[in-house]
Order: sequence, then structure tokens, then C-alpha cells
Amino acid sequence: MKKAVVLLSGGLDSTTCMAVAKSEGYQLYPVSFDYGQRHNRELALAKKVATYFEAKDHKIFTIQNVGGSALTDSNIDVPEYEGDGEIPVTYVPARNILFLSYALGYAEVIGAEAIYIGVSSVDYSGYPDCRPEFIEAFQQVVNVGTAAGVKGKGIDIKTPLMKLSKADTVKLGLELGAPYHLTTSCYKGGEEACGVCDSCVLRLKGFEEAGGEDPIPYKSK
Amino acid sequence: MKKAVVLLSGGLDSTTCMAVAKSEGYQLYPVSFDYGQRHNRELALAKKVATYFEAKDHKIFTIQNVGGSALTDSNIDVPEYEGDGEIPVTYVPARNILFLSYALGYAEVIGAEAIYIGVSSVDYSGYPDCRPEFIEAFQQVVNVGTAAGVKGKGIDIKTPLMKLSKADTVKLGLELGAPYHLTTSCYKGGEEACGVCDSCVLRLKGFEEAGGEDPIPYKSK
Repeated sequence: MKKAVVLLSGGLDSTTCMAVAKSEGYQLYPVSFDYGQRHNRELALAKKVATYFEAKDHKIFTIQNVGGSALTDSNIDVPEYEGDGEIPVTYVPARNILFLSYALGYAEVIGAEAIYIGVSSVDYSGYPDCRPEFIEAFQQVVNVGTAAGVKGKGIDIKTPLMKLSKADTVKLGLELGAPYHLTTSCYKGGEEACGVCDSCVLRLKGFEEAGGEDPIPYKSK
Repeated sequence: MKKAVVLLSGGLDSTTCMAVAKSEGYQLYPVSFDYGQRHNRELALAKKVATYFEAKDHKIFTIQNVGGSALTDSNIDVPEYEGDGEIPVTYVPARNILFLSYALGYAEVIGAEAIYIGVSSVDYSGYPDCRPEFIEAFQQVVNVGTAAGVKGKGIDIKTPLMKLSKADTVKLGLELGAPYHLTTSCYKGGEEACGVCDSCVLRLKGFEEAGGEDPIPYKSK
């Protein structure tokens, strides 16, 4: 059975990716990251999602926090959603580059032929490492910088949500039976989502436009 | 003073890079990695090299070992030098990609404008992530995938040894006063270098062709 490494944060997008990868016939090898995020509650939920999908293995890698972001430095507050096209202070330097690098090394070792990452450049926070040009550049790194790329069958970076609005992502996930009740998206990391950070606002908008009900609890929405 | 992150293994090439970066006027921020390498003795030497150069800070990041290489799996023996153009079993999946990703995140946080990596595609082991096409691809990741690349002054990946033979690297390091007595290169990680692994063979050849004496002890050479 073909294998895929799936970047799994325990959030809505990565859980949708798990459902997509499964529907495409892959054996799932999710990977999650403890990088000092204030919302590290997501790791417990990632475990539940991995279990739900009967993943073959679930690796949680620890990345030493060097700060530089509202998500990793408790001295920087998580702002409310602005959506002004600027890169917000929740940007974590090189985060997806690090995540993909870990996924890549692991994929080579286990012989996986795909890596799924739930980035989207439609309803997103403006992070540069969520855009198609970034994924294309990283794919080139895989192609020329690894043994799998140079001599083997290669490893595809798959981004099934790249062109989807949050509503389309929610619709896709609901169709495929993604367990959204097990997920969390709030940057603040409380048991009840705050409803006002970038991540909550985009998630709520997605459910509303998709005509579905978000099954997780909110403080306000 | 401008800042540079330098990938520092405690070996000959990265120590030469420290000397080059210093000579080019940078304040040095070396980073090293504990990735389960059997030759982890190099980390103690990296510390000595960092101290020698009066580095501003020296970070040692720990990367969880997922195996897949003779350098990280004690069940796979380190082979003697073959130089047949094949990628050897000492190849560590995605190693330089991970190292550069860490260096990049750190560089963004501290506002460094350069990352030095001592790769060479001349006298090397045949690893794909040591070649110019890999560095070019990673530079593109930096340019499109980070805030520094998209909105800031950018971060340059510098490879001063890329086109140098090992002999030319040794000559350059000796000119710049690189402390080679503090370095180690042997993949087997003993206090005396084995003299027969890829890394020892290339190092000894470098000193011999440069007309210098390697100051570290060998079992055989």
C-alpha cells in the first residue's frame, strides 16, 4: 500500500488533508510538531485525529522555540483578525519549511511517495509559506536535494486545499467524513475557541458559508 | 554589525566557513545539530570552535533521529571510501534541508542577513544536498517562503567552499587562521580519526595536496 506523510496540527485543514489522503488510497503517517506554540492543546487533538484515522504511526517532533512570533512568545499578544494583506505577528519564521523538512526526511526513511500539507492561499492569514510559489520552490528542493528526488521515484508535495476557500474545505471535509469534532483551530489554545483571532474568524466563516455547524465550543461567535 | 548564522559541525569545512564569515565582517551566530549522529563528539568540538571565534551565541538544536543512514543507525556500518559517484549509505535523508531550515528560522528571528554552509561539490561524498542546484532551490524557498524574503532585505545562503577542492579549502582556512586543531571529521567519531571513511580520506587528501600537516590524531593514514 502506498504511503503518505501528512502534516497534522489537529486543526481543520490538516484533518481535512487526512481525509483526502485516505480517500486517495494512502496509508497514513501523520507528523505533528511541538514548537513552543501557545495553542499546544492541538497536539492532544492531533493524537485523537490520528487514532480516528487508524494511522500506521504518528510522530510528534519537538522543535526548539527561538521565539519571534505571537504564537511562540508569550510577550507578544495574539491580535484579532485584521485581514489587511499584511503578514501578521502570528507568523512563525520558517515554520512550514521546518515542518516540510521533517516530513521529507521521514518520508525518505519510510519510503513514502507523498507529503500532504493543508495550506491554502485563499482564506488564509497571509503567511508567505502557504502560497503556491513556496510549495513549488520546496518541491524543487525535494527534486534536487534528496536521494529520493535524484535517484528514486520522487516525493510529491500535495496541497489539496491550496485553491479552496475555507467554505469549500469544510464542504470537502464533511463529504469525506472528517472528524471536525476532534479538531481545534484557535491560536489562543483555550478549551473554548476565542472566536476572534485570525484562525477562529476564518474557520467560523468557512462553516457559515458551507452551511454547516461547527461542532466545537466557542466563547463567542 | 551585520550578523551571519553559520552551520557549524565542528568539522574542517564548517570551521573554514567560520573563518570566512569572520573575514567578511560578520558577527557570528553558529548553529550545530544533535541528530543522533554516531560521531556526536563533533558537538563538543563545535563548542570549542565557537568559543575560539568569540561567537555571539551558539545554538545546538536537537533533531529527533528517524534513522535511515549509517551515520544515525548503529546497525548500518560506516563504509570505507569508494568514490564511485553513487550516493553512499552515510547519506542522511533531508539533513542539510533540516539544518538550513533551522538556520533560516533563527536568522529571521535575530535579523541575520546571511547563512553560511560549508558544502562543496568538488571533493565530496556525493550527497545531493551539497550541490549548487540544491542551494539555488533552497535560496528560492527563502525568497518566496519567508517574511524576510518577501518583505525584508532577504537572507543570502552563502557557500564559499562550493567550488573549492578540499586542498583549496585547507589552504584558505590556513591563510585565515582556522583552528583545525579543534576540529574532527571522522564519521566513526573516535578520539583518533579512522583514516579510511569518506570523510577522513577526503580530509587527508586535502591536507596532503595543500602541503600542510593535519594537526589531529589518526589511527592510520
